[in-house]
Amino acid sequence: MEQEGRSIDLTRQLGEPVAGNGLLHRRAFMKGGALFAGTAAVVAAGSANAANPIGLDSPAWMTTPGAPFSSYGVPSPYEADVLRTIGANPARPGTGVSRTPLHMLHGTITPNGLHFERHHNGVPDIDPAQHRLVIHGLVERPLVFDLDSLMRYPMENRIHFVECAGNSGAAAFPTPPQADVQQIHGLLSCSEWTGIPLGALLDEAGILPEADWILAEGADAAAMSRSIPLEKALGDTLLALYQNGEAIRPEQGYPMRLVVPGFQGNLNVKWVRRIELTNGPTHTRDETSKYSELMPDGTTRQFWLEYGAKSVIVRPSFGINMQGTGFYEISGLAWSGGGRITRVEVSADGGESWTDAALSEPALPKALTRFSLPWRWDGQPAVLMSRAHDDKGDIQPTHEEWASYFAPGQFYMYNGIQRWAVSAEGEVTNV
Amino acid sequence: MEQEGRSIDLTRQLGEPVAGNGLLHRRAFMKGGALFAGTAAVVAAGSANAANPIGLDSPAWMTTPGAPFSSYGVPSPYEADVLRTIGANPARPGTGVSRTPLHMLHGTITPNGLHFERHHNGVPDIDPAQHRLVIHGLVERPLVFDLDSLMRYPMENRIHFVECAGNSGAAAFPTPPQADVQQIHGLLSCSEWTGIPLGALLDEAGILPEADWILAEGADAAAMSRSIPLEKALGDTLLALYQNGEAIRPEQGYPMRLVVPGFQGNLNVKWVRRIELTNGPTHTRDETSKYSELMPDGTTRQFWLEYGAKSVIVRPSFGINMQGTGFYEISGLAWSGGGRITRVEVSADGGESWTDAALSEPALPKALTRFSLPWRWDGQPAVLMSRAHDDKGDIQPTHEEWASYFAPGQFYMYNGIQRWAVSAEGEVTNV
Repeated sequence: MEQEGRSIDLTRQLGEPVAGNGLLHRRAFMKGGALFAGTAAVVAAGSANAANPIGLDSPAWMTTPGAPFSSYGVPSPYEADVLRTIGANPARPGTGVSRTPLHMLHGTITPNGLHFERHHNGVPDIDPAQHRLVIHGLVERPLVFDLDSLMRYPMENRIHFVECAGNSGAAAFPTPPQADVQQIHGLLSCSEWTGIPLGALLDEAGILPEADWILAEGADAAAMSRSIPLEKALGDTLLALYQNGEAIRPEQGYPMRLVVPGFQGNLNVKWVRRIELTNGPTHTRDETSKYSELMPDGTTRQFWLEYGAKSVIVRPSFGINMQGTGFYEISGLAWSGGGRITRVEVSADGGESWTDAALSEPALPKALTRFSLPWRWDGQPAVLMSRAHDDKGDIQPTHEEWASYFAPGQFYMYNGIQRWAVSAEGEVTNV
Repeated sequence: MEQEGRSIDLTRQLGEPVAGNGLLHRRAFMKGGALFAGTAAVVAAGSANAANPIGLDSPAWMTTPGAPFSSYGVPSPYEADVLRTIGANPARPGTGVSRTPLHMLHGTITPNGLHFERHHNGVPDIDPAQHRLVIHGLVERPLVFDLDSLMRYPMENRIHFVECAGNSGAAAFPTPPQADVQQIHGLLSCSEWTGIPLGALLDEAGILPEADWILAEGADAAAMSRSIPLEKALGDTLLALYQNGEAIRPEQGYPMRLVVPGFQGNLNVKWVRRIELTNGPTHTRDETSKYSELMPDGTTRQFWLEYGAKSVIVRPSFGINMQGTGFYEISGLAWSGGGRITRVEVSADGGESWTDAALSEPALPKALTRFSLPWRWDGQPAVLMSRAHDDKGDIQPTHEEWASYFAPGQFYMYNGIQRWAVSAEGEVTNV
């Protein structure tokens, strides 16, 4: 999507790093394959002939008819390890999380089967014909909606990330966890959500002047409930019915959920059944026992809801070691609750020098943005880092900067810079 | 995503159609829910009280812990009819198609399990560790790539539709088929594709000056093969490895396929194992026995590869009848192989009057674009139509215009306007 790429003469950059430890210009690869030459094998002379022009035998799967059509496809059996990893107490199997294998995925969309989960008392088995959404409280007329009536309303579709407030929390502590991207950062996913602007439904109920927050309650056995500022509810919040084109799946809130773009994941209430307009926040169990932060002065910060700029390099990363020296693509994800990602800088020398990564377009607001940079690894130790900027002017802090904002032990909404060390042997660790 | 929406006073339009048979201004709904009021029920006075403030009982699924986490999610059992429909000869179960249920989906992304299929001899069961991609023919040095080496190359991710050349073919004939959107138009899907620009790999092999086409061959039992102009192969064509974030599924070309944006679906060769640079097209079985068109003068048109502007209304549509008079959202999909959709017009009176639909943003090039328009149906017969425009200036033709371009009986690459009739009883038929 780099329109200018092919017409720029980047010959100079091909062999000349633009930052320490072999980082190349973000558009260097557009000059063509010569940069990466050497990882492909040249077909051996003599192996090809007129009867077998490519010097390769036909594989077994070309010699017999393949499998028939299927009504609903599933991944290849060779991808059987690309799964959500589950973290739940066996005594309470519906309370915990499952994490997205971001280090084994690519692009920016998360397939529905791998969107992370966070449940407080399991996944309810909801009959959509019986489900109701009530809007009540400080309104002129309380309303009850069933799914059929909602299907007549105007819908919008937008791509947004959802991130758990506890995501990356393990990285907030002084000792870097030796764990992969999925384990540390996997409470993060991104989908195309389709639904009704919540404001349209609230307007229909008639908002009374004293209302300034809403309470949203899920139809799960925890009746998970969070307060949301009315301004946000009237803004870009959706009552979402579809995820990546199809009906939202049970573990994502079937038949309907809130999508509160860029805000703490917990506010995106799943299985939503009740919205109450209130004066001030409700201070529910779910927002007082959790999801608040102790500050250095001993006070508690509540309702810190919007994510700052954040990024993580996913290739290479812990568990994805180098396969010999030469050219690689550094690839990662950047996102911000404040808006659009405008810039991601990458360093290969632990922050001494930086250069700008290429951003995949379109870089949508409050959505995952893929960044990439060509890198020539010469076999020397390196420390890879990425630093995101958003269009609100927010810049991703270092670990030390982030930690200084809070009392020790805090970990919600962590967005410090991730550092991956590459050893001379090509092993990647967290430092 | 209509930035200006909330600040515009559309009160006038709320009650005043902008085109025949009740079509309203595309931004009318931004004024809030009042427009759609009446489909929700007002909570009955007396049903709510202090103990039960919303006047509704807790459903059964709130009274018992829900299901635990899952490693890979699946749709709700209540969505069991949202499936691909299979069209294949039982004697040759791997030859035919399966169709995407576009009328039951929303947004623009197709979930991977529901992406349409077109196979010529079934789905090969490919071991990715054994799969090889060869580039040979008119090159300086033939190359062989395995998956590990490809994983080091720079990747791009882009959202593009893929459409079978035979899609909508049933609508090309004089009698409109009484069938739903899935059956008529379901050989169409849209994904985020991630892969290596094919040009980078061709450059590495060293393109000889006489090369002007490529041949791409799949590793299926049909060795499905198509010719692609070299200019397109060096342009926006991808060697795709990921679809909507995860490895491409078996029926979509695992472990790799071509994505040739905006061109005939058959060129997006799945399971690609061989790319030969050639002088002129190869005239393979797959491009001579099929996928060419007889013209009125008796000549055959070959290699007509790029789709024109096209659209279809999916709600309401055949099988999705009206549920009483009042407000509805007309919702549909528009796309073009030439680039970006710039405008979609909608008519409710069979083409006598038209008004512009709202387009969901971003309207990406060679990707599905969702359009929508509020409609107040008064119970009178109506004929709904949509007409797409792209940024190349192409305008979707009527059925009659399209048919006049070709000899009778032709149906590939059909993009005529779809007409849905709504009867006074609310039944939707194809006219």
